[in-house]
Amino acid sequence: MLCVGLDTDWNLLPEHLKQRPNGLVEFNRAIIEATQAHCVAYKVNTAFYEALGARGWDALEETCELIPETHIKIADAKRADIGNTSAQYARAFFERLQFDAITVAPYMGEDSLRPFLDYPNKWTIVLGLTSNPGAADFELCKMENGAPLYERVLSTVSQWGSTENLMFVTGATRPEQLSEIRKIVPDHFLLVPGVGAQGGDLQGVIKHGKNQDGGLLINASRSIIYASSSEDFAEKAGMEAMLLKESMQSIISELN
Amino acid sequence: MLCVGLDTDWNLLPEHLKQRPNGLVEFNRAIIEATQAHCVAYKVNTAFYEALGARGWDALEETCELIPETHIKIADAKRADIGNTSAQYARAFFERLQFDAITVAPYMGEDSLRPFLDYPNKWTIVLGLTSNPGAADFELCKMENGAPLYERVLSTVSQWGSTENLMFVTGATRPEQLSEIRKIVPDHFLLVPGVGAQGGDLQGVIKHGKNQDGGLLINASRSIIYASSSEDFAEKAGMEAMLLKESMQSIISELN
Repeated sequence: MLCVGLDTDWNLLPEHLKQRPNGLVEFNRAIIEATQAHCVAYKVNTAFYEALGARGWDALEETCELIPETHIKIADAKRADIGNTSAQYARAFFERLQFDAITVAPYMGEDSLRPFLDYPNKWTIVLGLTSNPGAADFELCKMENGAPLYERVLSTVSQWGSTENLMFVTGATRPEQLSEIRKIVPDHFLLVPGVGAQGGDLQGVIKHGKNQDGGLLINASRSIIYASSSEDFAEKAGMEAMLLKESMQSIISELN
Repeated sequence: MLCVGLDTDWNLLPEHLKQRPNGLVEFNRAIIEATQAHCVAYKVNTAFYEALGARGWDALEETCELIPETHIKIADAKRADIGNTSAQYARAFFERLQFDAITVAPYMGEDSLRPFLDYPNKWTIVLGLTSNPGAADFELCKMENGAPLYERVLSTVSQWGSTENLMFVTGATRPEQLSEIRKIVPDHFLLVPGVGAQGGDLQGVIKHGKNQDGGLLINASRSIIYASSSEDFAEKAGMEAMLLKESMQSIISELN
């Protein structure tokens, strides 16, 4: 169930890697090697790469290539625009970069997501209820029928794809709402960020979010990749990932 | 009032430029030279550059540098994420690339837009009502108080910034709604895409959207930059931009 988030911030690299021309990719390579036995997916946050310009885009491409074929490669990009523009984003992430999945924002509606959904063997991961305080501003606002906007998004968007090409982002900082979410999308995979640095509750997430197939990708980024800022960063990241995986396994055993 | 959209698609370049290593930037340079007397802003659609990978990101950077200081440089990027990630996007577009403005999606709420709004002398352009059919899926859905979601977005987000650092995207394909929009945000600049290839109605947009200061940036992309697919593409683009500017001037004169 574990997804490791490669939100790799150049400023937070261990000192010895900052000196090296391709330090960011070396960091990612070491993190991937140390954690791959404990996770099923990697989520690469595009913002941290774009902040470095063209050099960062190269690092994004190299990082994508480093992720083993056995793992799901997620571009955490939060894109979406009118159809002809979304088609370009889909090309960027599904063809040029060989990601398996991309996160997208639902605001602009079906034609803004259609180009992503129409790619065979790729996943579109739509924002449902996010883990940040700003979720209260619109996502949790009530619609005419009394249900919050994010429920409308889940029920509407779930008709645009299948459980084979569509997942939803549902934040870990609101685990009790995962029960409500599971009533609307019982069978879709949920990508759950917010465990770790954002303070999400792992037990609550699994208890309320799990379905009969598991159905969860639980992401941790900063708590794993910055577990140590010294030369032992990869070793410590591997240990954090292992501990998180073991916590998940023990929570699941207790629930069964 | 005219904004020229550089949604430059490599596949639609004139044949003689496709042969050249930096053909896309040469295309943009010629378009900018031919149109700058007729417009006040350029909007660069990041998707078309990302689809080319790191090379495209270089072209984005070069294009941004080609836009004269006299014109507003808009990154049409539709970004927004949790705060620490939005801060990276803001750095990417406001510092590394020297854009004056960026388009962002409101779904994730205030903390997802705050890093953009906090940059001095920069503009944050928030999606309000977009020009695509998918606007009907969520933007036009009614909230508990009977008003559509996009009105909630306008009234809420307008409190997060001022008329000096905040604009809204409001599509030209729904000009009659601009009157309603002007009741909520009378003084903010509106970025209005959808004139041209998307079929928006210029007269309706100006009539319903103009305020006492003008208050409109009306964008046309494909109808200008692809006015001709031959070697005279820049000349034809300049003519299209001039005609559009003159149409705007004559509509404004008639209204006064």
